[in-house]
Amino acid sequence: MSYKAIDSEDIKYLKTIVGDNRFFTKDEISEDFSHDELGGVSNMPDILVNVLNTEEVSKIMKYAYEKDIPVVARGSGTGLVGASVPLKGGIMINLSGMNKILELDEENLTLTVEPGVLLMEIGKFVEEHDLFYPPDPGEKSATIGGNISTNAGGMRAVKYGVTRDYVRGLEVVLPNGKVLEFGGKVVKNSSGYSLKDLMVGSEGTLGIITKAVLRLLPLPKKAISLLVPFPDLNKAIGTVPKIIKSKAIPTAIEFMQREVILAAEKFLGKKFPDNSSDAYLLLTFDGNSKEEIEEAYDKVAKICLEEGALDVFIVDTDERKEAVWSARGAFLEAVKASTTEMDECDVVVPRNKVAEFINYTDELQKKFNVRIRSFGHAGDGNLHVYVLRDELTSDLWKNKLLEVFKDMYDKAVELKGLVSGEHGIGYAKKLYMFKQYGEEYMSVMRGIKSAFDPENILNPGKVCE
Amino acid sequence: MSYKAIDSEDIKYLKTIVGDNRFFTKDEISEDFSHDELGGVSNMPDILVNVLNTEEVSKIMKYAYEKDIPVVARGSGTGLVGASVPLKGGIMINLSGMNKILELDEENLTLTVEPGVLLMEIGKFVEEHDLFYPPDPGEKSATIGGNISTNAGGMRAVKYGVTRDYVRGLEVVLPNGKVLEFGGKVVKNSSGYSLKDLMVGSEGTLGIITKAVLRLLPLPKKAISLLVPFPDLNKAIGTVPKIIKSKAIPTAIEFMQREVILAAEKFLGKKFPDNSSDAYLLLTFDGNSKEEIEEAYDKVAKICLEEGALDVFIVDTDERKEAVWSARGAFLEAVKASTTEMDECDVVVPRNKVAEFINYTDELQKKFNVRIRSFGHAGDGNLHVYVLRDELTSDLWKNKLLEVFKDMYDKAVELKGLVSGEHGIGYAKKLYMFKQYGEEYMSVMRGIKSAFDPENILNPGKVCE
Repeated sequence: MSYKAIDSEDIKYLKTIVGDNRFFTKDEISEDFSHDELGGVSNMPDILVNVLNTEEVSKIMKYAYEKDIPVVARGSGTGLVGASVPLKGGIMINLSGMNKILELDEENLTLTVEPGVLLMEIGKFVEEHDLFYPPDPGEKSATIGGNISTNAGGMRAVKYGVTRDYVRGLEVVLPNGKVLEFGGKVVKNSSGYSLKDLMVGSEGTLGIITKAVLRLLPLPKKAISLLVPFPDLNKAIGTVPKIIKSKAIPTAIEFMQREVILAAEKFLGKKFPDNSSDAYLLLTFDGNSKEEIEEAYDKVAKICLEEGALDVFIVDTDERKEAVWSARGAFLEAVKASTTEMDECDVVVPRNKVAEFINYTDELQKKFNVRIRSFGHAGDGNLHVYVLRDELTSDLWKNKLLEVFKDMYDKAVELKGLVSGEHGIGYAKKLYMFKQYGEEYMSVMRGIKSAFDPENILNPGKVCE
Repeated sequence: MSYKAIDSEDIKYLKTIVGDNRFFTKDEISEDFSHDELGGVSNMPDILVNVLNTEEVSKIMKYAYEKDIPVVARGSGTGLVGASVPLKGGIMINLSGMNKILELDEENLTLTVEPGVLLMEIGKFVEEHDLFYPPDPGEKSATIGGNISTNAGGMRAVKYGVTRDYVRGLEVVLPNGKVLEFGGKVVKNSSGYSLKDLMVGSEGTLGIITKAVLRLLPLPKKAISLLVPFPDLNKAIGTVPKIIKSKAIPTAIEFMQREVILAAEKFLGKKFPDNSSDAYLLLTFDGNSKEEIEEAYDKVAKICLEEGALDVFIVDTDERKEAVWSARGAFLEAVKASTTEMDECDVVVPRNKVAEFINYTDELQKKFNVRIRSFGHAGDGNLHVYVLRDELTSDLWKNKLLEVFKDMYDKAVELKGLVSGEHGIGYAKKLYMFKQYGEEYMSVMRGIKSAFDPENILNPGKVCE
């Protein structure tokens, strides 16, 4: 599909929408806007527009639709699969400036926000009102618009679910510029196909989110973490299904290995509370009373010890909390800093298949003689597996990566897992998804894309295309 | 759109799929299959097939698709909007016989079921294993397939959400007979557009659900209800946003008025614990310890009394529980039995607009001189409002109903509510949804319908058509 090349007429008109100060053309645009966090794929937009309201987005889309110009929406650019890269150039709509918290409605427990509000700002704001926005992706400088677009997950999914579960309503600008509202402040909704749920996780391919109504919960009064060392990873991860089966409900269950902890210590220049063991589980519990939490974690601590844990550290002092969670927050950056280049696999498998999958990546490490590092959400089956380039030549790296990824995704399919648990498909994971889903499935997805975007101007080349 | 009329060739072929014993033609089919629970619209299918497995469904769909024969899927037929009525005749696929619980996976906390399993069977089965399937629609003899197809809600939505939140994966037969799996046992999923969430609530128009993977929770160890009489409905309902704002999390908050209680007493021949007040809230709390529940309900009881409640009855004996919940379960039937004919409105509004909406229906009662009864889920904003025919002539009834409904749905839109909270759109509520959503929105929905069902053979005339 070929698009109209942007010319001076387009620039002239588009400038009238936002004025000179928020409008940039090729040379004025920072290279940052050509790629996302993981790199791998990049391309510059022809035009960058910093929008401030829905009307501007609508006018730009209407023009682009009429003229057949590709458009990509962008937030903080913290994605990991190239979903916000303007593969075909055209217009990039930067929504970071639409960053107002519009309304806290305590009678309906909702927060209405613009898409550019950062995740960290939402957390801070609602906690000041003794409220809670449970989704907890590691990257707190991501925008809420980006989180919704990838259906971001995070650590608390074990107990609280993912972003989708906390989006009650969306204002969306369609590719043709029309503005629609999906859902609202309502708690229940059986009024036709759930376009709200379709927008969540659609990675900027169906419409541009310009407002979101989020669902809040009362803030749990207390939370505590346990750091549990195990002699090896198998023992650690093998304990997780037993915890789930015990009917305890931890908020989060993360797993980590010594190599990753060492990398984080080096990266942060700070010590982790313990690095003497091969593998760790990090569990969090929250609730409204000390007794309630203690009862839950006592039971789980006992299970861990029965399954071979070497100790159970209660992370209750501020110092320990900071040491543990700053390390956990730095894993991705630390692994990245330990090598020359890397690519990641964000598979999700049923929770009782995590150990089998991680063991398999260990085999691949040996088979392909390549460093593989992983950490992730043992409690919800979502793994982050990083293949590291180190000193490999460009050709060798590319070939190895293809082979390792092929084997990993095949394994995920075998275990009834899926290509992405929380990072999305974007550009980088398309072929793996196509392979798993097959032609019939993809043709339904493409039909949906056409229903929203018949001219295919919005974020072309992504997800199903 | 016209379809192929069924002839002897079709009958001959379709019989080969399921054999003689599960295949019925016009005269052999009970009139029950021509309508659902509320009536209002009815039409007989030409053929009724009682299927037993996915392969049979797939073969029937493939044939119907090739020949252009309309098909409607049917469960228990407990719907209230005509969604399972075969408007165009053709083939009705009865899934009630696909009623096996296939697997309880305690390590992943999932239950895999066929679509014909009844809601009451699921509840009983999982509770025997100390597990919990939270969605709690009043009609326990509905099939889980039907519940998923309408995204059924129920009373526990205040704390636990709706059916959508407990569907992890679906096996679906597409209109062309192909079988796909959406989602799975995985906890997180960012792998392309969420076709699973699109299927939930699509009322049998996009595909036929032949298997579902449900998410379970540990069974809360204790539950208690409070029955709280108020001098009038405004005081009762006005208390609800204050309860939500107080950060208590009740499992359910129902409201009821004396007239409906009296109707239920008459219908059941049993006394309700109290019928001396004008209006009541019925609240439930669940949790794992007596202390936890007591703390929550003490706070709420205090709020109710501050807001003018006349008393607070704790429903803790088996006898009281039975009296209260059997009455609550019988409200729909009781109201129905009190008149000659009725139609219902299942709007959902933001929780702090419930009182305003109910007051408005009171005005309509006077304005149109027609009996209107309501009860419902005050805690989630989902109201069931019944307009009763009583002794009105057919013409008068039809006209009045149109006018009353028009006013009610206009009011719902004004309050930023939606046409249906949990009963769906089906056939009966289409025009109200079209009016609220407008042409642009509906054209996206129709595009989605086409992506799944380009020949429009599956449940034609419903939802968006």
